[in-house]
Amino acid sequence: MNAVNHQIRLAARPQGLPRDSDWEHTEEPVGEPGDGEVLVKLEYISLDPAMRGWMNDARSYLPPVGIGEVMRAGGAGEVIASNHSGIVVGDHVSGVLGVQEYAIASGDAVTKVNPDVAPLPVWLSTLGMPGMTAYFGLLEVGKLEAGDTVVVSGAAGAVGGVVGQIAKLKRCRAVGIAGGPEKCRHVVDELGFDACIDYKSENVAGKLHEHCPDGIDVYFDNVGGEILDAALAQLRRHARVVICGAISQYNETGQIRGPANYMSLLVNRATMTGFLVFDYADRIGEAAKEMGGWLGAGQLRTFEDIAGGGVAAFPHTLLRLFRGENLGKLVLEV
Amino acid sequence: MNAVNHQIRLAARPQGLPRDSDWEHTEEPVGEPGDGEVLVKLEYISLDPAMRGWMNDARSYLPPVGIGEVMRAGGAGEVIASNHSGIVVGDHVSGVLGVQEYAIASGDAVTKVNPDVAPLPVWLSTLGMPGMTAYFGLLEVGKLEAGDTVVVSGAAGAVGGVVGQIAKLKRCRAVGIAGGPEKCRHVVDELGFDACIDYKSENVAGKLHEHCPDGIDVYFDNVGGEILDAALAQLRRHARVVICGAISQYNETGQIRGPANYMSLLVNRATMTGFLVFDYADRIGEAAKEMGGWLGAGQLRTFEDIAGGGVAAFPHTLLRLFRGENLGKLVLEV
Repeated sequence: MNAVNHQIRLAARPQGLPRDSDWEHTEEPVGEPGDGEVLVKLEYISLDPAMRGWMNDARSYLPPVGIGEVMRAGGAGEVIASNHSGIVVGDHVSGVLGVQEYAIASGDAVTKVNPDVAPLPVWLSTLGMPGMTAYFGLLEVGKLEAGDTVVVSGAAGAVGGVVGQIAKLKRCRAVGIAGGPEKCRHVVDELGFDACIDYKSENVAGKLHEHCPDGIDVYFDNVGGEILDAALAQLRRHARVVICGAISQYNETGQIRGPANYMSLLVNRATMTGFLVFDYADRIGEAAKEMGGWLGAGQLRTFEDIAGGGVAAFPHTLLRLFRGENLGKLVLEV
Repeated sequence: MNAVNHQIRLAARPQGLPRDSDWEHTEEPVGEPGDGEVLVKLEYISLDPAMRGWMNDARSYLPPVGIGEVMRAGGAGEVIASNHSGIVVGDHVSGVLGVQEYAIASGDAVTKVNPDVAPLPVWLSTLGMPGMTAYFGLLEVGKLEAGDTVVVSGAAGAVGGVVGQIAKLKRCRAVGIAGGPEKCRHVVDELGFDACIDYKSENVAGKLHEHCPDGIDVYFDNVGGEILDAALAQLRRHARVVICGAISQYNETGQIRGPANYMSLLVNRATMTGFLVFDYADRIGEAAKEMGGWLGAGQLRTFEDIAGGGVAAFPHTLLRLFRGENLGKLVLEV
């Protein structure tokens, strides 16, 4: 085929927030899939806080994106050529496909998704990595028990919104923390949290005390920084702090702010645990089935914030994520 | 009886290191034990890092010592009067007896100790709270497994020294961190650790990398601050960080330094857990039996740093602890 594949590549390692000069827009002919591979025409690209970490030259759970490489990203689209026995043209798949219009990937490395069950963006959201992150982070890492008081930061985001909804489904109290009145209204009115604290205008520590009078059993942290400290100060005995992310710190050019209140872990015999959803890969099916059931029954709501502009819009759309301008899962329509 | 009881009371809440003016030396007649109580003539008083926290007016796992109250302290001595059915004059006991020469305590709140099994200072050390803290912190909270690489800070102290020795008994690698060449020599030569890093003269991060080439499975932290951060940077996947104390931070007058490298918990799917030995009270007997067996068999060595001067020497002896001048368990002979 003669189509052109527009791509966004990492041109330089950002200091702080990524700038235009950190990206390179390239185009190349669309290639042919090799043995066992598929060619996917991307329809949606996922924008995730973790992307910022992938851009740093630091040892982490994945190697950094190399300078000159297509930016790593989750995505979903339609298979337009296949040399894989289990995947046919017309199938829809999701996977780590990069910020580009066409991707060649191993058929074993992508997941078939059914657009009749849910639109493709949902497969990058509640039925994708963010939803699975919420599910395993809360239930497995956070060891949720009925009656727990759950606090989640980034509550209007793709992961946080699901965390609080699962907490409610499991007969727990859910308190969100989000930025701004619009998000807080969404978290309470549309996601069904018991309360939401606006960290931009309210005193988080004081409000946590008010909304969690018996303390916090599970704190699910997506943000780090001052909010993590405020939550630590309000832990209940044997609390579980789930470290999912630290978006407030990802673009810090100075020293990361560590949680000064970490000794609350000792006073309260509490645990702080980090996790990665990849470690639950063999249980994604089980979780997706339960989550899909909740979605189908209307017990779980999913919100996607779909940006337009194609891959060229990726750089400034990513900044929207770091400025906290998205409501629900931010995806880019290709 | 007409004896006089010399006591040290908290006169003011210290800012930073306790000063002489934060203490009051008092004396009063020795009282008579009431129903169920015993009168103990103290022989040894325990000096513990946790004491600093007890002096602050802050919500914690125990109420603060009140201004004008006898300073809280563990101690051991001989029963010289008893109204408790299970304790007779001449018995030796340990318990929270305060910084004073004579204490009246509920017989149910003290523990009988046998000076024929081990001298009294050992009952405040390896067979007392520090030893039990090491035992449960390493084995239960740290979930030690054979072959693990264990790093412990404060390795020449009462808790740290036992942590490393138990690690060796359990066929693990033990790396200590301590201040100064004398302590490091003690940790390796007398306690049998595989290595010891002198944080005063060596680069802790670099040395941890050298001594733990495959990473740290269990980091047992007694100190906090920079050393905690260095250890976090070197965690192995599924590592357990045990938060036992943070002596480097207890006398900080400014902001506590939180662990800036805490996101290593996420990268390594690791856990940081705080604990208090009191929560294992119902299992102390089991632990003391095993520890006593190791001591008796010469598999576990115990070191007590016995200061003289009686209760009047308490204030400056406590400063020795915070300056890191003790080797092994610091106790005050009454």
